[in-house]
Amino acid sequence: EVYPRKIAVVHGALRRDYAEFYARCRRLASALSERGIGLGDTVAVLAPNTPEMLELHYGVPMIGAVLNTMNIRLDGPAIGFMLDHGEAKVIFVDREFSGLAREALSHATVKPLVIDIDDPEYDGPGTGIGAIGYEDFIASGDPHFNWQLPADEWQAISLNYTSGTTGNPKGVVYHHRGAYLLAMGNIVTAEMTQRSVYLWTVPMFHCNGWIFTWSMSIVAGTHVCLRRVSAKNIFEAIAAHKVTHMGGAPTVMGFLINAGEEERKPLPNVVNFFAAAAPPPAATIRKLGDMGFNIIHLYGLTETYGPAVINAWHEEWDDLPSAER
Amino acid sequence: EVYPRKIAVVHGALRRDYAEFYARCRRLASALSERGIGLGDTVAVLAPNTPEMLELHYGVPMIGAVLNTMNIRLDGPAIGFMLDHGEAKVIFVDREFSGLAREALSHATVKPLVIDIDDPEYDGPGTGIGAIGYEDFIASGDPHFNWQLPADEWQAISLNYTSGTTGNPKGVVYHHRGAYLLAMGNIVTAEMTQRSVYLWTVPMFHCNGWIFTWSMSIVAGTHVCLRRVSAKNIFEAIAAHKVTHMGGAPTVMGFLINAGEEERKPLPNVVNFFAAAAPPPAATIRKLGDMGFNIIHLYGLTETYGPAVINAWHEEWDDLPSAER
Repeated sequence: EVYPRKIAVVHGALRRDYAEFYARCRRLASALSERGIGLGDTVAVLAPNTPEMLELHYGVPMIGAVLNTMNIRLDGPAIGFMLDHGEAKVIFVDREFSGLAREALSHATVKPLVIDIDDPEYDGPGTGIGAIGYEDFIASGDPHFNWQLPADEWQAISLNYTSGTTGNPKGVVYHHRGAYLLAMGNIVTAEMTQRSVYLWTVPMFHCNGWIFTWSMSIVAGTHVCLRRVSAKNIFEAIAAHKVTHMGGAPTVMGFLINAGEEERKPLPNVVNFFAAAAPPPAATIRKLGDMGFNIIHLYGLTETYGPAVINAWHEEWDDLPSAER
Repeated sequence: EVYPRKIAVVHGALRRDYAEFYARCRRLASALSERGIGLGDTVAVLAPNTPEMLELHYGVPMIGAVLNTMNIRLDGPAIGFMLDHGEAKVIFVDREFSGLAREALSHATVKPLVIDIDDPEYDGPGTGIGAIGYEDFIASGDPHFNWQLPADEWQAISLNYTSGTTGNPKGVVYHHRGAYLLAMGNIVTAEMTQRSVYLWTVPMFHCNGWIFTWSMSIVAGTHVCLRRVSAKNIFEAIAAHKVTHMGGAPTVMGFLINAGEEERKPLPNVVNFFAAAAPPPAATIRKLGDMGFNIIHLYGLTETYGPAVINAWHEEWDDLPSAER
């Protein structure tokens, strides 16, 4: 309503403004509702960081349903376990992961409605296994759908599973209240504004992308989707879209440091990089700092609302030599 | 705990860091508690924007008591009515307003403990009327006082009265939950960071200074107190402390526009000015813009949580000619 023409989502050559983003989320909510999905029903998804994944973060809560984003790196039995345990009513499957989904479904007793996502940015193998494609599905929905705020702020908004290292995956349910609190907390901590541009290197299936999925839209910033995290893709996205914020595990930092000369591009501005997990080595911070990244270390137990501890910067450190910083 | 050495409060030549600010608030809470003040008790204050006024915004909620900041421009009978209606157990009185407080107390049936505030920045008339002075009072308190979070987020945090234009003043109670929500909302809306410096031109007695009293400390920014709002004082404070945010009614904008040459100082940076009440005339916005102020118009029903509607800036307006902006 306030910024209908502002770019909400970037994905490859695709640009969608907030009006269009909102209309698509309402169509999605409406189409799900038409299929009988509603309060407390689980909607699963197996997809990388695409616009559809973002839309699911809005369309599913609009009808009081619970979004269960699943780790695309797990195997069929683990995903199958989650589908059963979460009692999935619907599963959205990106074509790249249709084989994984098929195997998972063969291990599961639930029979969810399967909807295929066919991302134009993906040209690899895999064939649809669903009853309908995402675009056809949402085309059947009403762009003016009268969605509802949750009747109770403690109502579930999403379901996230651990990766099952020590047994069967364990599910954690987020409530709307907690999602709101962390969404606002992220903005304050990451100092995000309406001019922020967030690059999606953190998987959205990973505790809802540390809840930046929701934070970014509060400030009407721009989501830059990224199907595949590689040094080349990251540097290109930063240069093209003037990314201001991103995050990731040590792996992502490794990609950036070890990038070949031909993959690198100069940063158009300081990029705030939220580094999760163990503290990055000083050499990593220095090298990334030299490239123009501002590394902010944080830590949080993934399944229980993400970032919780942060290395709060002190102004008096600004002028310290690189090694001391 | 995170920024103990960061400057929390500036007042004239005074500088207090967050460690000291916190210790003084705990002493205040402790001293009040020793006097039997606790959950749900009303603590009134009649003071301008001094450090003591800020400390009351923290020390009083620490013991579950309710802060009743009163409009220093009202008369004795109105203040007396509030003291009775709010069942004040304590009243803090700045020396400048001791005559007003004395008159108010003569109209009231309650007999609150009276504590004098003697601001070193004030050298005008007025004599203490209290049982004890503020500094002696808090000196009796424990700087390590074990304060408590509210047991219930719906618990009252403050009591604000209308100015009684249409009858006796009407009291509105803020809860901790609402104060938290607006405190965070202010930060997101005003794009405040840990480098923000807030100049206290909005009276803190005016719906708790639109709740920026609490917002600023969340980001560990600096509060610049201002006992008296005048063009000279404002320009000096901005230049000396690199103020980034301030707010005010049309009167304050008038002071700035009509300032004499000898009162003006160049702005060291853009100052975000939150302008409440009716939309300022284009000429006012233009003149202040030429000086370096970024005027953001907002509106909110004062006694019910302050700013609620804001003129959200659109990036594409940045390059418009001044008149169109």
